[in-house]
Amino acid sequence: MNSKIRLGILGGGSDSLIGVLHRIASAMYDKYQIVGGVFNPVWEENIGFAEKIGLSINRIYADFDTLIEEELKLPLNQRMQVVSILTPNFLHFPMAKKLLENGFHVICEKPMTTTFEEAVVLNSILKKAKTVFAVTYTYTGYPMIRQMREMIKNGELGTIQKVDAQYYQGWINPIIHNKEKRLTTWRLNPEKSGISCCIGDIGTHAFDMLEYISGLRIESVLADLNYLYPDNKMDIDGTVLLRCSNHVKGVICASQIATGEENNFIVKVYGDKAGLKWEQENPNYLYLMEDGKPLRVLKPGHTYNSKLSLDGTKLPPGHPEGIFDSMGNIYKGVAKAINKEPYDYGEFPTMIDGVRGMSFIEKVVESHQKGNIWVNIENVD
Amino acid sequence: MNSKIRLGILGGGSDSLIGVLHRIASAMYDKYQIVGGVFNPVWEENIGFAEKIGLSINRIYADFDTLIEEELKLPLNQRMQVVSILTPNFLHFPMAKKLLENGFHVICEKPMTTTFEEAVVLNSILKKAKTVFAVTYTYTGYPMIRQMREMIKNGELGTIQKVDAQYYQGWINPIIHNKEKRLTTWRLNPEKSGISCCIGDIGTHAFDMLEYISGLRIESVLADLNYLYPDNKMDIDGTVLLRCSNHVKGVICASQIATGEENNFIVKVYGDKAGLKWEQENPNYLYLMEDGKPLRVLKPGHTYNSKLSLDGTKLPPGHPEGIFDSMGNIYKGVAKAINKEPYDYGEFPTMIDGVRGMSFIEKVVESHQKGNIWVNIENVD
Amino acid sequence: MNSKIRLGILGGGSDSLIGVLHRIASAMYDKYQIVGGVFNPVWEENIGFAEKIGLSINRIYADFDTLIEEELKLPLNQRMQVVSILTPNFLHFPMAKKLLENGFHVICEKPMTTTFEEAVVLNSILKKAKTVFAVTYTYTGYPMIRQMREMIKNGELGTIQKVDAQYYQGWINPIIHNKEKRLTTWRLNPEKSGISCCIGDIGTHAFDMLEYISGLRIESVLADLNYLYPDNKMDIDGTVLLRCSNHVKGVICASQIATGEENNFIVKVYGDKAGLKWEQENPNYLYLMEDGKPLRVLKPGHTYNSKLSLDGTKLPPGHPEGIFDSMGNIYKGVAKAINKEPYDYGEFPTMIDGVRGMSFIEKVVESHQKGNIWVNIENVD
Amino acid sequence: MNSKIRLGILGGGSDSLIGVLHRIASAMYDKYQIVGGVFNPVWEENIGFAEKIGLSINRIYADFDTLIEEELKLPLNQRMQVVSILTPNFLHFPMAKKLLENGFHVICEKPMTTTFEEAVVLNSILKKAKTVFAVTYTYTGYPMIRQMREMIKNGELGTIQKVDAQYYQGWINPIIHNKEKRLTTWRLNPEKSGISCCIGDIGTHAFDMLEYISGLRIESVLADLNYLYPDNKMDIDGTVLLRCSNHVKGVICASQIATGEENNFIVKVYGDKAGLKWEQENPNYLYLMEDGKPLRVLKPGHTYNSKLSLDGTKLPPGHPEGIFDSMGNIYKGVAKAINKEPYDYGEFPTMIDGVRGMSFIEKVVESHQKGNIWVNIENVD
Repeated sequence: MNSKIRLGILGGGSDSLIGVLHRIASAMYDKYQIVGGVFNPVWEENIGFAEKIGLSINRIYADFDTLIEEELKLPLNQRMQVVSILTPNFLHFPMAKKLLENGFHVICEKPMTTTFEEAVVLNSILKKAKTVFAVTYTYTGYPMIRQMREMIKNGELGTIQKVDAQYYQGWINPIIHNKEKRLTTWRLNPEKSGISCCIGDIGTHAFDMLEYISGLRIESVLADLNYLYPDNKMDIDGTVLLRCSNHVKGVICASQIATGEENNFIVKVYGDKAGLKWEQENPNYLYLMEDGKPLRVLKPGHTYNSKLSLDGTKLPPGHPEGIFDSMGNIYKGVAKAINKEPYDYGEFPTMIDGVRGMSFIEKVVESHQKGNIWVNIENVD
Repeated sequence: MNSKIRLGILGGGSDSLIGVLHRIASAMYDKYQIVGGVFNPVWEENIGFAEKIGLSINRIYADFDTLIEEELKLPLNQRMQVVSILTPNFLHFPMAKKLLENGFHVICEKPMTTTFEEAVVLNSILKKAKTVFAVTYTYTGYPMIRQMREMIKNGELGTIQKVDAQYYQGWINPIIHNKEKRLTTWRLNPEKSGISCCIGDIGTHAFDMLEYISGLRIESVLADLNYLYPDNKMDIDGTVLLRCSNHVKGVICASQIATGEENNFIVKVYGDKAGLKWEQENPNYLYLMEDGKPLRVLKPGHTYNSKLSLDGTKLPPGHPEGIFDSMGNIYKGVAKAINKEPYDYGEFPTMIDGVRGMSFIEKVVESHQKGNIWVNIENVD
Repeated sequence: MNSKIRLGILGGGSDSLIGVLHRIASAMYDKYQIVGGVFNPVWEENIGFAEKIGLSINRIYADFDTLIEEELKLPLNQRMQVVSILTPNFLHFPMAKKLLENGFHVICEKPMTTTFEEAVVLNSILKKAKTVFAVTYTYTGYPMIRQMREMIKNGELGTIQKVDAQYYQGWINPIIHNKEKRLTTWRLNPEKSGISCCIGDIGTHAFDMLEYISGLRIESVLADLNYLYPDNKMDIDGTVLLRCSNHVKGVICASQIATGEENNFIVKVYGDKAGLKWEQENPNYLYLMEDGKPLRVLKPGHTYNSKLSLDGTKLPPGHPEGIFDSMGNIYKGVAKAINKEPYDYGEFPTMIDGVRGMSFIEKVVESHQKGNIWVNIENVD
Repeated sequence: MNSKIRLGILGGGSDSLIGVLHRIASAMYDKYQIVGGVFNPVWEENIGFAEKIGLSINRIYADFDTLIEEELKLPLNQRMQVVSILTPNFLHFPMAKKLLENGFHVICEKPMTTTFEEAVVLNSILKKAKTVFAVTYTYTGYPMIRQMREMIKNGELGTIQKVDAQYYQGWINPIIHNKEKRLTTWRLNPEKSGISCCIGDIGTHAFDMLEYISGLRIESVLADLNYLYPDNKMDIDGTVLLRCSNHVKGVICASQIATGEENNFIVKVYGDKAGLKWEQENPNYLYLMEDGKPLRVLKPGHTYNSKLSLDGTKLPPGHPEGIFDSMGNIYKGVAKAINKEPYDYGEFPTMIDGVRGMSFIEKVVESHQKGNIWVNIENVD
């Protein structure tokens, strides 16, 4: 008997990178079997892609509604258990909503929705549905990020007194200075991308990450965004002052016009006992700094790491794992939740992360538009 | 119709790390489907493992001979096409031999055999079999190693004048100083591990890598090995002077008693135009050094990379990929060969790499035993 | 005939680190001879220190006023030409004022004064005095900082679109959480240290550096400071949003409670053509980032560097120079100015840097106190 | 009274880099006063240089013999106490010899002599002279090298089981491939440079460093050198297998044709308790590796460092010091010895280091010429 979790996929066809990431992630711990989905709204491409990746086409559906309809006809032990939503952002909400309402578990790409309002609705639906819901803030799956979380939780930093995240990319630089490009790129089109580009896309990662590792709640924000050109409608750079629970202050610096930067996401947390620093582009190093002691560099797979961290490493120290492995760890956690095995709350980001992320985006934009004033993040539970 | 390549697995069950590596690698490009194999000589464990990883058990066989027998009964379009050999080293040769003689493609872990003699036999069998054969020198699949190879091939370093590889680990340190441990560890037992530990296990990686990236042939070696204790029968450290084709000199430094080192494999090639340096523990950086110019750091996924390198990257720059991805690239290359699609000779290490690696091990040990004299590597084609 | 510039020193005796730094810096290019000064208000220590460092004591004076009086009696070709002020901050202003009024050149430690008002007075005195005045923002003397300045000046980054400086230290962490320590440390005592600790001490370095390298003027600031304890009167951490000339936005993050950080000062400037990054703790690397090109790492001493940068390197590439060498370069520039040799405006920080630095400190504190609002930096010429 | 040590300088005039290094080093701890010397054999340049660096010319001598003659006429409390020899290599021996014979302390650049025979003579003269003699293996003055030595001495690495030094430069690459250049460069001319280029220039640094930090004696060597062209008479690259006291094995890899490398000197020592690694181009980091523990990075100036290390740091952690500071530490140690203050044997390299270094060069060349055989280093005490 095949005990794998039956996984459906929405989107991610053709040459989608996010599709590759999710498919490999789902395979990493032998826990999932992709049984079908809708890869593409065009039927020929949909089918063609399924064949290309070696899937039987009998559960490849013409569209999302058909998928729901047909899967519900199947007995529970054949039906898709979980569906991954990899479609354009505006489809996340309706798809997640209907999936939850029909009892499916959901793995949803970020941003979870296009508005905070939608996110709140989804949250309330989930409460009734009682299924598993994960939003894929991929970077939280790295073993050294998990280690950071656990060390902080265990008090190894003492009382936190400063949080800092930088997320710098340069990919919009070759676009923004060309009028035609900046007016036609979908990421800079509010109708397609929501109210924020830089904060929505990468600022939210920083926001979620800081909350994930520190255990703090970011309570209010004061932001200054940058659009560079008057005809550009979307922020492409911004700095956000933070006030967190326990009176901790912090900052998020985000940019997509940091020319030449690739995906330079750095997080730092300083407590009264020690500080920790991590850089996404070298994800297997965690820097522990203490007053007057040698810098220590922690690496994955060593027994000095926490259980949560070790659960996310597949090979011995010195064998670098990367972002696919990070996403694989999130899928592993979701699998445990679906299979009702014990798991740690830190194994995958949840609905609450998604909802708070949406509030963060809206409040940052509000702060900027109102003249760089403090605005509170909405609290949702 | 499922177009995936039908893959069988020998070994790699239970908590085998190499098993995880191969399974994930096979899944990375949607090219393979694991259809069966023999994971474990104990039937219950064999079956249990298959179920654990979600495989149908109808093609899980009691032993290797049964696998051959039963698979041959299947029509060609159902039969396993390729079999991965992940068993203990001494089984590589008989398994590979029989698989090749029966028309299967083979992916074989390194070291390919336990002696050079076996390797030569295997090579002659392959010539008749005309199937695909790969030996998994995993590190050659890294995108920046492929880039190194291509740049050298294209003359970007000019004429090579120096090659250097260092492979330092420390894992034997906690074993070697304890008499009981050093006499009972299988890696230090010649009956189980062949004639060499350090050179056999990691020195060969260095040897193969230098040939892979430089296009040179290492022609003779002068080695000094270290055993530390008189009752220890296996080398655990050694330095090998190299003389290569085109009168190039070089060195391989290998150690498993470099206390605290994890998997610190570094390769450097210097030509009269430029030098290149790569470090396995940070595999996404390739350092290009030129007289009087700024150091350049090349990274995966950029369009400045060669086709061969780009073929081995799945995500945009700044999203680190690791060793699973490297092995995935080797499986991808093998898939192309099996499917008779065009592929580059650099996409996976071949029988010749395996044979030369075996000669290297034997000649290094011979050089040491004869008092650190020059010994020629056997040439095989 | 001894052609060296006659240098006097105020302060820097006993075990003063800043004293060591200035003495060595003055010796680095064979341009200065220390002829006397006042090292310490206590006569025995003053004389004792002079002897310890091998100075003739005949021009060691009891106090600053005596120094002025006695030196003025000497003929011009024997009189001290330049005096370095290394005393506690509150003495900088009266000493610099009197020195300038009496025709001496001045090298003044930072912060130049304790208030912006004093700084303005000093500036107007200098205009009449027409002597050389340098304020020792030491880090601007590093060869790769000079290179950064020149590359930006020459348009190699294109139009600047983002500036970012981080200056993180952890040394106040072991002090701030202990009530007695935090109430008695002079750095946290406004009467001794002026209105700001973190911003005054290290934030100003970041401010001056960003202006130095970018050629921009920082026009207004919005700051959020952190004091951690209600009874602590001095900021020990803060983030400052920046608006600069040419509509460039930026940020300065400063902290002295970033536990375990040593002197982690990082500056980044991003233009539409390229970005540059530099880190003080590894000052011999300058990172040049361009869209879709390999990262380039520039190092001191190479002929690809600018004249200004090369003028600040004494040895060939690969021989690391450090902070003493950086200060030495500032002294070298001052020597040129005193000797009326041609020099570049970037060779040492001037009065205007000092004045603007004082305005920055005051406006940052004002912004924080008024509730994190934008406040303009005073313009002075 | 001026208590500084009276220092004379031989050579190092004009645009000599080594001259700058020694002058600044002598100034760093306020211990020396340069009183005269012979900077250049051409009188006008000699005098001109003295004036340029601000020296009184009354003790600038026409030549070395005159210096000896005239200085001996001076009373002991005015006479030069120590003389630094910075002249071309072949002059080191006669100058050092005569200086020692006349009771002067000597600081001598490396290589100490041009032959082992000369070195032995010098050693026997020193034994009678009983003055202070230092040979400036500059890199041994770095604080983290001193720390490495002390940690090993204190047993923190346990029993040493492997030593490894790499010293790679690329500066000969632009010379060697041009026939005219390689036949005219003085460094490649045996009459001017002795019997070895690469080993003599940088291999000796590696040799001395390994002995300095490990406390071991390198007893025999097996070397393979590289000359690249038949008409090139000097080694420009080589690898040396080592056998040391306590049965420790090791390797020195040296090259001056490692294209694009600057001054990449790396040393590693592995014991049964831990390993240590240091890189000259980032001299302020010392990497401590232990089985299964986080990597630790030690930095200068912290109280966790040894007394010997801390004695070589002038500023607090985070303020990078460099190679001038390293040489300054050697001068500081020599000053202590001259002043008969207590000092550690590790504060400066001595005659024995110089003698052993000469034996190393000769034995490495001998090993290569005799066909890569083991040759013993001469023992001298």
